[in-house]
Amino acid sequence: MKKSVLLILLLSFVLGLSAQTAKEEIFADVYRSGSNYYAYQIPEETSLTAAPAGYKPFYISTYQRHGSRFLTGKNDYSTPLNTLQEADKAGKLTPLGRKVMADLDSLNCMSRGRIGELTPLGAIQHTGVAKRMFTNFPDVFEGKALIDARSTIVIRCILSMMDECMQFKAMNPEIEVKNDASMHDMYYMNYDDSDILKLRELPQVKAAIKKFEKNHVHPERLMSSLFTDHAYVKQNINADQLMEKIFRVTGNMQSHKYQTTLNLYPIFTRQECYDLWCGNNLYWYINYGPSPLTKGAMPYLESNLLKNILDTADTCVVSRSHGATLRFGHDSCILPLAVLMDLGGFGKVINNPEDLADQWRNYKIIMMASNIQLIFYRNPESNDILVKALLNEHEVSMPVKTDIAPYYHWKDVEAYYRQKLATFKKTFYSKSHI
Amino acid sequence: MKKSVLLILLLSFVLGLSAQTAKEEIFADVYRSGSNYYAYQIPEETSLTAAPAGYKPFYISTYQRHGSRFLTGKNDYSTPLNTLQEADKAGKLTPLGRKVMADLDSLNCMSRGRIGELTPLGAIQHTGVAKRMFTNFPDVFEGKALIDARSTIVIRCILSMMDECMQFKAMNPEIEVKNDASMHDMYYMNYDDSDILKLRELPQVKAAIKKFEKNHVHPERLMSSLFTDHAYVKQNINADQLMEKIFRVTGNMQSHKYQTTLNLYPIFTRQECYDLWCGNNLYWYINYGPSPLTKGAMPYLESNLLKNILDTADTCVVSRSHGATLRFGHDSCILPLAVLMDLGGFGKVINNPEDLADQWRNYKIIMMASNIQLIFYRNPESNDILVKALLNEHEVSMPVKTDIAPYYHWKDVEAYYRQKLATFKKTFYSKSHI
Repeated sequence: MKKSVLLILLLSFVLGLSAQTAKEEIFADVYRSGSNYYAYQIPEETSLTAAPAGYKPFYISTYQRHGSRFLTGKNDYSTPLNTLQEADKAGKLTPLGRKVMADLDSLNCMSRGRIGELTPLGAIQHTGVAKRMFTNFPDVFEGKALIDARSTIVIRCILSMMDECMQFKAMNPEIEVKNDASMHDMYYMNYDDSDILKLRELPQVKAAIKKFEKNHVHPERLMSSLFTDHAYVKQNINADQLMEKIFRVTGNMQSHKYQTTLNLYPIFTRQECYDLWCGNNLYWYINYGPSPLTKGAMPYLESNLLKNILDTADTCVVSRSHGATLRFGHDSCILPLAVLMDLGGFGKVINNPEDLADQWRNYKIIMMASNIQLIFYRNPESNDILVKALLNEHEVSMPVKTDIAPYYHWKDVEAYYRQKLATFKKTFYSKSHI
Repeated sequence: MKKSVLLILLLSFVLGLSAQTAKEEIFADVYRSGSNYYAYQIPEETSLTAAPAGYKPFYISTYQRHGSRFLTGKNDYSTPLNTLQEADKAGKLTPLGRKVMADLDSLNCMSRGRIGELTPLGAIQHTGVAKRMFTNFPDVFEGKALIDARSTIVIRCILSMMDECMQFKAMNPEIEVKNDASMHDMYYMNYDDSDILKLRELPQVKAAIKKFEKNHVHPERLMSSLFTDHAYVKQNINADQLMEKIFRVTGNMQSHKYQTTLNLYPIFTRQECYDLWCGNNLYWYINYGPSPLTKGAMPYLESNLLKNILDTADTCVVSRSHGATLRFGHDSCILPLAVLMDLGGFGKVINNPEDLADQWRNYKIIMMASNIQLIFYRNPESNDILVKALLNEHEVSMPVKTDIAPYYHWKDVEAYYRQKLATFKKTFYSKSHI
């Protein structure tokens, strides 16, 4: 009885079973509408489920996203700023329009030489993740524990790795950390499979996105609030794009918590934030998620990563030592990985884009500093290795039967994922998809 | 009396006053002929000179080179390998030639996806630097000491920074480390001043190098040992270049201490190693050092870096807190900086390239993980700040009068360097140099 309650709780963390709709959640905390810019949410002090008797954690395997950062496009700040500056020269801005222009100008200045870089907030997020990982699973980090830390070759990921590893060294100076950030590992740390990627170009994908945007993007009110002249807007401004671009900067302003108190969210209504998020949520579902529009293939972008996780775990299980394999990378990897592993039911197939929001929410997976942790347990009196999955430090389900949820028998989990990868490899590459 | 002995000892560390000639030093330790590939030499347990009574260190400012690494050119391993492979196909290699080909092939394979990257040896060098820095100057690192660590945007430098900072956190978990590796700081962390750089193109520079090479590069013996057919070599091989390229790989093999026991040094005679080093030493002296051939301007490539060191120290002296500013970068910065600061007499002008080797030796400055440390001291009963300079952890002289060598009055040091920078700025940019 207790177990089924737990399973429901596990599933309810991510699925539509939660008390709130996506709209309610976003109205309650508008920063969620930032999607992948949502700042890491430290889990409440909840008790993680105790391991079955006799079992102790000995190994942790993770994939973690870098912390909060500046926007990554070199024109992400300057393009909307320039649009407003031109309108200002033409005398077409409202007082609010001029205020927004000034705020964008501040952010644009702040971003010089820092495009894509970790922010001060980003720098501390992984310190916290490390501290809680160490505290929750001290056996893994005791004595001369070995940490194999690897990052993509992107600096914000390397610095996130540094912040996390410094925290481990502070908590146990004896820990040995091997660090790396090499082209050599990019085939699994952040890999683009061109056969899969081209599915994004399918006509039905573009049609679905266009139709959805038409229903959900309504820039008219915002344009009236920023510009004095409707005709000028019609003639000179791509209103959909400008709204999207300002919203992008707005959503990421939470990354600058320790740098500025500027906040552009008030220029949007909550409904607009929700609508814009819905479009972004669909973007992620189609481009990285299990969407039938991209034939359910997108999660397999992370085939190499999942294989590396399985292979490395195999080695560590055999070695009888203890420690962790930490991988630092990107939202565009961690989301398809979570889907591929079907953690917490995130692999769910949803056919109608209009049904998506309440069943699948990107901000639950890819907030800044988001992370997937697999915690491995052993019992000196048994050869049975157990594993538990955490998504952003919450216990989540895996798509495998178990008698001890949220714990799973590693042999079952491994067999399931290896079979899943093998099946895809056998079927997908044997036929043309376009 | 004691002071002048000390000064002589200080100067003797780097100048021709040392007991050994460059040739003797290289014959005694052929790895020195690797120049900037020379692995970091941990200083012997010598007693650093105690500070004057009442003075305690409170701040350290550094510029440090990354640790041992793979070669940085994408063809550094493959070009000499390909030359030997072609000769092998033509049946023109000796047994030794085939052995060298096999060794180069191993290294070429090892370097795949790792060009320019830190090696396992490189990863531990900064751990040691940090450990000794902490141990020698514990006051700087006590309590909530603040470490401002910055790196160029090159990954081997960032990982070196990570290794050093993890060590600090291990020795004092309370230390606060702020890390960064940003384009934003590149104007002083690794800056190329095109007005200065074009001096390298002067005709007299090229003539001097050509003349020197003619005297010092003798590939005939090596070619005979690798190839069976003198005519083939003459027709197909640029012998000078092949010798230089194999020697480059050879010199850097010490970077792979924990990866392989391969060693190509035995295919060169000690005299050849010395001769090839002489050419490389001249290269550094002309391209980054105080050479009159490049009008003594090269060290000023690091004007922004020296200015940053002075400005940051000013702030830290005033703030009354304690900690360190750590900068991680490259040989091509640390060598001109050491010359610009005239540390240990390395700013010495030598007119005849043939006199260079015994008066100025690049491997004393730019070994892997090389570092310049300025240690700042204060006395609660005085406003006089003292400073001491370390080059690769050896006390070195600065070009300023002092009554307490190896300590200097910061106000004198600062005034001297600011004046030096101002004079160059005023005179250099006002005229054409080509």
